Amino acid sequence: MASQEIEDLAAALARLPGLGPRSARRAVLYLLKKRESAFTPLVEAMERVRANLATCDICGNVDTQNPCGICTDPRRDPRSLCVVEEVSDLWALDRSRLFVGRYHVLGGRLSALDGIGPEDLGVASLIARVAEGGIDEVVLAMNATLEGQTTAHYLAERLEGYPVRLTQLAQGLPMGGELDYLDEGTLAQALRARKPVV
Amino acid sequence: MASQEIEDLAAALARLPGLGPRSARRAVLYLLKKRESAFTPLVEAMERVRANLATCDICGNVDTQNPCGICTDPRRDPRSLCVVEEVSDLWALDRSRLFVGRYHVLGGRLSALDGIGPEDLGVASLIARVAEGGIDEVVLAMNATLEGQTTAHYLAERLEGYPVRLTQLAQGLPMGGELDYLDEGTLAQALRARKPVV
Repeated sequence: MASQEIEDLAAALARLPGLGPRSARRAVLYLLKKRESAFTPLVEAMERVRANLATCDICGNVDTQNPCGICTDPRRDPRSLCVVEEVSDLWALDRSRLFVGRYHVLGGRLSALDGIGPEDLGVASLIARVAEGGIDEVVLAMNATLEGQTTAHYLAERLEGYPVRLTQLAQGLPMGGELDYLDEGTLAQALRARKPVV
Repeated sequence: MASQEIEDLAAALARLPGLGPRSARRAVLYLLKKRESAFTPLVEAMERVRANLATCDICGNVDTQNPCGICTDPRRDPRSLCVVEEVSDLWALDRSRLFVGRYHVLGGRLSALDGIGPEDLGVASLIARVAEGGIDEVVLAMNATLEGQTTAHYLAERLEGYPVRLTQLAQGLPMGGELDYLDEGTLAQALRARKPVV
């Protein structure tokens, strides 16, 4: 079809999540056609990020600065710490703009199946941050999966005895959720956690 | 969520066809995590293509060389010319590996609605190539759409009188097509063009 360089670019793009060989080829064609308006800006944006890429030594977030923009933001409340499994969870929560504290990225979840124990996750660094003091609340924002909840449970045990309030995300109906389409587990949880109408 | 540079990269990726804001963020996270195995190769592949990007003066293909790899390939049959609407069509046909001639990219299709006439397409250059001689067959490989077929019809008229055999792609059932799921137009065309069983 095209030169080896173009084939290589399509192959590199096809490895991105969400793109297959077909959509990667469409993306390449798009870039080739829009050299100035799309190709150049994309390459420059990539170069800028790649040149400055760093993992935050404090929280584990990925950013173009270390410590990351969240850890160094003076408007953030240092007394509130939200523990998440992955960087993607941090980004997702932060998009809600509701949490104004700081984060701690574990880098995964406890999994007997995959042989992932506490020593493979950022647990020791979390305990160290909490032990250092100055933190009032730790939000255990694990996924609502078996492994996520196991991890939250384990962290709650490890953090026992420290003078912090432990909280976790509410579980129940998702926004816009229709009962008819929700799984039984969600419905059961929503029923169990039902609240009085104010 | 993240630094401005990372946001900019996500925005640039989200403009690619097939990627939206959500999948672009996932792609960015993937790149940040796989800096050496995915991010660097992708940036380098992009740089190589962007540095050498060119449109073939002969056929209109996009490649990293001009004339393109197909026009300069001595194993290609110069007597057979396949006319397509877009570069993407050229790539798609060439993946079938069945056509071993050369191509001519029109850069679009005739469209009264969009105000696209023959002068907006590579029609004059096609006529010039055919008039130059040395071509036995011109395959009009337009899309099986109204505009594509109008374009093919127009080209057939313009090429009348030149000593070339004009052909077009067969229309009928697509491979794996189930009658129950095919539209009436396709079925009517497959019936009209039915062939004796050999």
